[in-house]
Amino acid sequence: GVPATKKPCVEQNLQLSYADRAKLPNIHPLASKLLKIMDDKRSNLCVSADVTSSKELLQLADSLGPKICMLKTHVDILKDYTVAFSQKLQALAEKHNFLIFEDRKFADIGNTVKHQYEGGLYQISSWSHIVNAHVVPGPGVVAGLSAVGKTLGRGCLLIAQMSSQGSLATGEYTNTVLKMAEDHSDFVIGFICVSKITKKPEFIYMTPGVQMQAGGDMLGQQYTTPEEVIHNHGSDVIIVGRGVLEAPDRLKAAESYRKSGWDAYTKRLSQSGQ
Amino acid sequence: GVPATKKPCVEQNLQLSYADRAKLPNIHPLASKLLKIMDDKRSNLCVSADVTSSKELLQLADSLGPKICMLKTHVDILKDYTVAFSQKLQALAEKHNFLIFEDRKFADIGNTVKHQYEGGLYQISSWSHIVNAHVVPGPGVVAGLSAVGKTLGRGCLLIAQMSSQGSLATGEYTNTVLKMAEDHSDFVIGFICVSKITKKPEFIYMTPGVQMQAGGDMLGQQYTTPEEVIHNHGSDVIIVGRGVLEAPDRLKAAESYRKSGWDAYTKRLSQSGQ
Repeated sequence: GVPATKKPCVEQNLQLSYADRAKLPNIHPLASKLLKIMDDKRSNLCVSADVTSSKELLQLADSLGPKICMLKTHVDILKDYTVAFSQKLQALAEKHNFLIFEDRKFADIGNTVKHQYEGGLYQISSWSHIVNAHVVPGPGVVAGLSAVGKTLGRGCLLIAQMSSQGSLATGEYTNTVLKMAEDHSDFVIGFICVSKITKKPEFIYMTPGVQMQAGGDMLGQQYTTPEEVIHNHGSDVIIVGRGVLEAPDRLKAAESYRKSGWDAYTKRLSQSGQ
Repeated sequence: GVPATKKPCVEQNLQLSYADRAKLPNIHPLASKLLKIMDDKRSNLCVSADVTSSKELLQLADSLGPKICMLKTHVDILKDYTVAFSQKLQALAEKHNFLIFEDRKFADIGNTVKHQYEGGLYQISSWSHIVNAHVVPGPGVVAGLSAVGKTLGRGCLLIAQMSSQGSLATGEYTNTVLKMAEDHSDFVIGFICVSKITKKPEFIYMTPGVQMQAGGDMLGQQYTTPEEVIHNHGSDVIIVGRGVLEAPDRLKAAESYRKSGWDAYTKRLSQSGQ
């Protein structure tokens, strides 16, 4: 892809559709691509493919591919990762028109994350369209990732809020994340957040910890529903892991989340007078 | 090793020696082991082995082993990691009596970090004595890691401050880290920090970004000297990367850092009237 240039974002109160936002003059090419996918496939569902076998992950990607706009991976929990696996995953992303998001949560100084993003066994920058980062190390973490990903046309999400109990990503921390995103809008395409945290329609807002029923796990995860996330909190993408993976029929569960997320989005749009 | 039990830590103003602290009644067995190593080898030097070849990392570990108390790794920047490599690294840690610290900076919800710590290609919990974590996800990140590492006798460092410019690990954030460490003192053995941030002698304080001259890199890293870190700021361990790796003679550089760090420590002890 063509690397983006840094441009100021426009503040918008109006509820734009995904399709309209994809055409905004200052939008990052990868954000535009994702918004078009979401519109085309009528899906704001990202499935979190937290399985430990490459084969199972590829099966998931192939079967759920038509239902999702994005597949989220934790490549470092796969017991049998190979370069061939990453190539097959890319082919499935092409086939079903979804983006790959490696949820690496980079969180080191710039010089280190450069190596972690580009090198090692995983060579994440070679196959993952989107990665994310914690900003706790300061702006160097974004600069280091951008030094690798920008010329490849990759995009980064900054973690502005977390779904887990007692998260420290709140208040001033979240405000600093926003500032850092604006300073690096040629590489940062959006946020991991609980709700839409700015009015800027060029950024994409993605929310993890989504299930059909609110609740939690034993290690501090807290769940919210698709309706709550997309309609009430104004987020753009629901990230669903166990809600799909632990369902007796994963495809049926994915379709059910896709529909819930999409219905919440169309309800939001209709209420804003579009 | 034997898993530790959770006990309250004692507040101490007195400057205890590494050897004295190793014998404290409530000290974690792994913290005690590290303090004994530091005393035995007269070294508070941890070398950050940021190389991308397994062979070079093993050569470093073997040649610098006698000079260091700990070797810090970024296993995910190695282009050729294998299980055999991790076994050879463990053998070198035994041979030269140092601990291995995989600087993974875990930073996800509890359920995810469990898998990242134990599974994947790296199986970090099987070979690394010490790991570290960002607390931004809330206490679940420590609970998740502890569920894997505690019964193995492993230890965790919480990242309370960072050496990089514009770090958000300050103020209230740092205070929350302290609280979380005390709540998990059966697994948390100390901190990554810029200076000694509590008076508790059971915790070990480790500081990265150390070079012989103060300065910085182009991606926000900031350097402090061994004297500043150990004598002025009361930290226990200096973590040195490029200061050793980019030296014309790495062994000579490591010895020079070992001596500087140790001299600063003995100066600190002598001034506290021991």
